[in-house]
Parts: sequence; structure tokens; C-alpha cells
Amino acid sequence: MSPKIKTRIAKLLGELGEKGLDGILISQPENRRYLSGFDGSTGFLLIAPDKNILATDSRYIIQAKSQAPDYEILPVTSDIGGWLPGLASELNIKRVGFEGEYLTFSLYRRLCDILGKGKSVLKLIPVEGIVESLRAVKEPGEIKLISQAAEIADAAMDYIRGNIHPGMTEKEAAWEIEKFMREKGSQPVPFDVIVASGPNSALPHAQPSARAIQKAEPIVIDIGARVGGYASDLSRTICLGDSDETFKKVYDTVLGAQLGTIAIVKPEMSGGEADQIARVIIEEGGYGEAFGHGLGHGVGLATHEKPRLGPNSPEELADGMVFTIEPGIYIEGWGGVRIEDLVVMEAGKVREISKAKK
Amino acid sequence: MSPKIKTRIAKLLGELGEKGLDGILISQPENRRYLSGFDGSTGFLLIAPDKNILATDSRYIIQAKSQAPDYEILPVTSDIGGWLPGLASELNIKRVGFEGEYLTFSLYRRLCDILGKGKSVLKLIPVEGIVESLRAVKEPGEIKLISQAAEIADAAMDYIRGNIHPGMTEKEAAWEIEKFMREKGSQPVPFDVIVASGPNSALPHAQPSARAIQKAEPIVIDIGARVGGYASDLSRTICLGDSDETFKKVYDTVLGAQLGTIAIVKPEMSGGEADQIARVIIEEGGYGEAFGHGLGHGVGLATHEKPRLGPNSPEELADGMVFTIEPGIYIEGWGGVRIEDLVVMEAGKVREISKAKK
Repeated sequence: MSPKIKTRIAKLLGELGEKGLDGILISQPENRRYLSGFDGSTGFLLIAPDKNILATDSRYIIQAKSQAPDYEILPVTSDIGGWLPGLASELNIKRVGFEGEYLTFSLYRRLCDILGKGKSVLKLIPVEGIVESLRAVKEPGEIKLISQAAEIADAAMDYIRGNIHPGMTEKEAAWEIEKFMREKGSQPVPFDVIVASGPNSALPHAQPSARAIQKAEPIVIDIGARVGGYASDLSRTICLGDSDETFKKVYDTVLGAQLGTIAIVKPEMSGGEADQIARVIIEEGGYGEAFGHGLGHGVGLATHEKPRLGPNSPEELADGMVFTIEPGIYIEGWGGVRIEDLVVMEAGKVREISKAKK
Repeated sequence: MSPKIKTRIAKLLGELGEKGLDGILISQPENRRYLSGFDGSTGFLLIAPDKNILATDSRYIIQAKSQAPDYEILPVTSDIGGWLPGLASELNIKRVGFEGEYLTFSLYRRLCDILGKGKSVLKLIPVEGIVESLRAVKEPGEIKLISQAAEIADAAMDYIRGNIHPGMTEKEAAWEIEKFMREKGSQPVPFDVIVASGPNSALPHAQPSARAIQKAEPIVIDIGARVGGYASDLSRTICLGDSDETFKKVYDTVLGAQLGTIAIVKPEMSGGEADQIARVIIEEGGYGEAFGHGLGHGVGLATHEKPRLGPNSPEELADGMVFTIEPGIYIEGWGGVRIEDLVVMEAGKVREISKAKK
């Protein structure tokens, strides 16, 4: 068994044991990939102390055998209701966990119906966030892939700074960035490139439009690359030509909040406490109401994963976690400023993975 | 109110009335977009006979106001558990449907807890496939957008036929195709481009690899573009230089199954009956075991939506539906052949939307 998968499964089984579970069903795509290596679109893992099974359909059997050599591949022609009861009985599994935050209400109810009708002794127990919490703390190999993805995004940000000009549309700039990242080795990008200019930059999740970029206005650029399945995430706000006084004041406030947070955040702080550092700086700058999203989020196989850094988040930061620090100020009608870096917690403090100029 | 949204909501309310529901909650992204125009990543619609509300957070308020003018925008700072009970009581809604196939088990259970503790009279009733069934039958405006997306994919297929050559890797070819489609006006593509050569083409959902394409082997190319939110989906299998006897036999069998199905499929057939037409032709060719996926699927805002054409699918085909017809034969070690066209059911028979050479 590959040491990486073995370690991950051992940690998971430890957690299951504490909850009195005989096994767990995993179908959330990133969790499934993390625990098996398989990145097809459909399939269930059934993980138990002495058995790892990956059930998938004929479209994915060859891929599953090659990507998940640590698993017994079970080719299935029906959905999970058809094969789970028999398999659980064969393996003598009585209490099996499932991903409560991923499995739909309808599938859960149908499984219960099938188990009830078959007088199965199998009990389905919802669990939340177990695999997500394991994923939050990265291994060195994962940090390396994220860093490679960050390097591509950094290079793309440098490239667009040198090529963006008044009259270029947001869409054109976004496509230039995406093409650059793909040609530098990124897999399909983890999220659509954001280039939001002038008033559009007041929308934190704006979509690139046909608007022509102008001088002296804020331009928010938010991009990510993907390497080996792992994402990066980077935002910068630029201004072509001379900026107005508002831009200078807003930019300096956001930058102060971002650098201040990077300097202070440390392990054992909660995501809520980290968020509060930036929020206080922005409030003191007079823009408290204008920072309408959380401070950041973990990044890995998913662009948004644990830990969440935002108001009231109880999730504790720890060494090995990779997350964004991205305060922003948004003013309807004028525009917005966001500055986002990817960082890793190491030896008690954060190290910036992104290197793009601020 | 825009006539398009008004018609869609009226049909939905008709269905809710038959089920004795006072309203419905919608959060599945394509359903939400279809019923409101809003395409942000987060938000709930609450649709009731005299009230249409879109609840979303501060990141999306400006976008929601602009994209969903038929809705009252409710800015929310908590999740649905925080605002639903009060709102339902204010609107006197007692039985509200939710998307059973989308809402997670955990969120359902938490909502029930909150409603129970608040002694709310609100009852949550799971419904399945109502909006998806409305979406399956396309309006002329939707068919136009899908046709535009299909035209881009057709042009990309022609382009790659003229540019693919032995020694080019699958990844290189896939990127050439994607770049071509984006530069011809496609939004970010609806699914990753598939270029699978030689033995890799035996995997229906192969990922482009660093393998160099060779002469005389099957190359499956499966691509889609996106216009105005609507996807297209097209597959061709080509062979550079002279093909072997197996290729000729397999290709002709798949093509026969595809053309035969296109000629015969008509309204009121079930998705299972349509699938059976192609399956019988492939079985008669001696490759029954090698057609391991369904015949096709609806295409619209989602790449895979209703109707499902596959073994035992009871979904009835009808005028206005847009779907793929894509039989395939896959032989481990040798490779595969898939031929896929997008069609629309019109006046009792199917019309091919895709025009790429077969």
C-alpha cells in the first residue's frame, strides 16, 4: 500500500473508532480522491479496518484500477442501494458512517427504505467534516503542488500587469491570464478568472464583462492555477495611471489589514480570531461596513476548503494548514480593493506562498 | 415581470399546487438560474404564489439585483436556518417543498431541529425533479443558445481534424481545441476536453495525457462549448492514416447504431426504449458487452440533465427536448469508438444540431 494513502486511511480509521463506527462511505469527490487517488466523477469508497473498496461503474473501471491500486475495485451496475446491503453483510459491518454534508436527503431516505425492507442490521450514521479536517493539514508533497500552482498564478499576475491597458475589456484580460496559466502548465483552472474594473470591482465575485478597462479606476484580478489536482488562489488590485484619493486610502487600509494579519496570525488561533484582526484594522480605517466577506479559506484539492477564516469561525489554525488571507473593501458605485495571498502555517507562523508584487 | 421567467414560474406553481405545497425552496445552481436569472454560487429562492424571494449574501447583492429583477432580494448574513422560519411565518407558508436530490442530509436535519425548537408550523416536503423536468423541454431561445454552442464545437472539431498529427500529445491537442473554442466566443467550457488515443480511448471518460498520438489508432475527441450559460456536447472518433480492420468494423457498428437511433427515435418513446435501439444494433454487431454506458443525456444549463437515455430509463421523450445520441464500443487494451451528436426533438422526430463531419 502506498505510504501516503496508508497514513491517511489510518488517521481516518482512528477517528471512526472513536465514534464507534465499523466503516465509512465516501463519495464527496475531493474526499474520495484524497483517500484513494481516484479522480473520476462517480464512485463510493467503503473504508473499513481490513477492507478498502471502491465501487464505480464500467466507464471508470480501468481508471480506478490504475489510480487506486490500494483499493479493491467493485464494478457496479446499480446505484448504492443495490450493492451496499449485501456487501455490508458480507463484511459484517453494522454501523457505517456517511458524509452528512454531502449525501442528499433523497439518497439517504432511499437507502434507509432499502435497508428497512431487507431487514438489514446495517445502520447509517451521519458524520461531518472528518475527512475535510484531515485534508486541512497538508503534507509536504501537497504543499509542493500548491506552491507550483501559486508560482504559475504569480507569473500570470506579473504578465498581465505588463500587458493590461486602457480599452482592453475585462473578458480579454481574463482570457489572456487563463491562456498564460494553461500554457505555463496549469491544469484546467480551479475557478473562473475574475477581472473586475471600475464599479464592477465592487462585486467580490464579479464575472468578466465586455466593459473596457479605463485609467484611474480599481481593477480587481482574482486568479488560480491547478497542478496535480491542487489549486492556488491569488488576488491583486491595480490601477492604470494615477489613482484617485479614495483608491489610495482604500488600498492602504486593505494592505494594512492584510500585512497586519499575516504578521499576527498563529497556530491555535481560531478562524474567527484571525478574521477579527483584519476586521478591526478595516473598521479603524472607517470602512467596517464595506468588508462583507470572510478573511479567507483553506485551499487544496478544493479551492474553498477547511479552515474557514471568517466571523465566528471556531476552526483552529494549525501548522501545515494552507489558506488565503484576503481582506477587501467594496463600495457600490465606486469599486473595490482586495488583496489576497496564499500562506502556509509553519513553525508557529505564516509563510507567504504567493510572491506576486503588491 | 419578464415573460420568460413568468412562464417558468407559472408552470412551477401549477406543479406545486397539485402537490398541495404553498411554496418551494430552490438552491440547486442551474434550477436557481433557470427560475431567476441569477447565476451566483450561493443563494436560495423562495417561490410562492404571490412572492418571489432571492436570499443571498453581501458578495452577491448587486449581482442579484441586476440579474434577478423579478425577485425581491433578501440580503442574509446567516444561513437558511436563521431566516427561513421567520420569513415563512410572515408569508403564512406552511408546507414548503425542497429539492430532495440536492439538499444535504445535514442541512435538512438542522432545519428540522430549528423548526422543531421554534415550534414552527412550517413543514418541509421533499420534491424530486420538478424543475429539472421543466428544464428538459427547451424554449426557442434556449435552443438558439445551445445551437450557437454546438456551432463552436463543430468548428473546433473541423479545426483539430486539420491540425492533429502523429507525435502531438493528447494534452496538446486538447488545449488546441479548448483555446480555439474560447477564442470563437465560448464561455469557460462546460467540461474538460477529452482527447483519448489508442488504448486510452477505451476509457469513456479518459483525461488527456502526455501520450503522443500515433497513426492507425482510434482517437476519441469529446468536447463542448458554452454560450449564454448553455452547453453543447460533441464526440467524434478519428484515425490518422490507415485504420486497422477492427477500427473499420467497430466504427461502422457504432455509426450504424447512431444513425439508426437518430432515424427511429420519436416522442413518447422512453429513454430506455431509445437506448435499446442502439443497444440491439451493437449487440447484433457482436459488441454487446462493450457498450458500457447509456445512449445519451439531456443538455442545457447543465451538461448532463434530463432526459436520461439509458437502460430502463422511464423518462418520456417529447418535442422540445435537446439531448445527445452517443453510442460507443470500448475494448480494453485496443481502444474505443464513440460518435455523439446533439439533437432536438421537433415535430415528432429528431433534428441534428451538431453538423461536424462523421
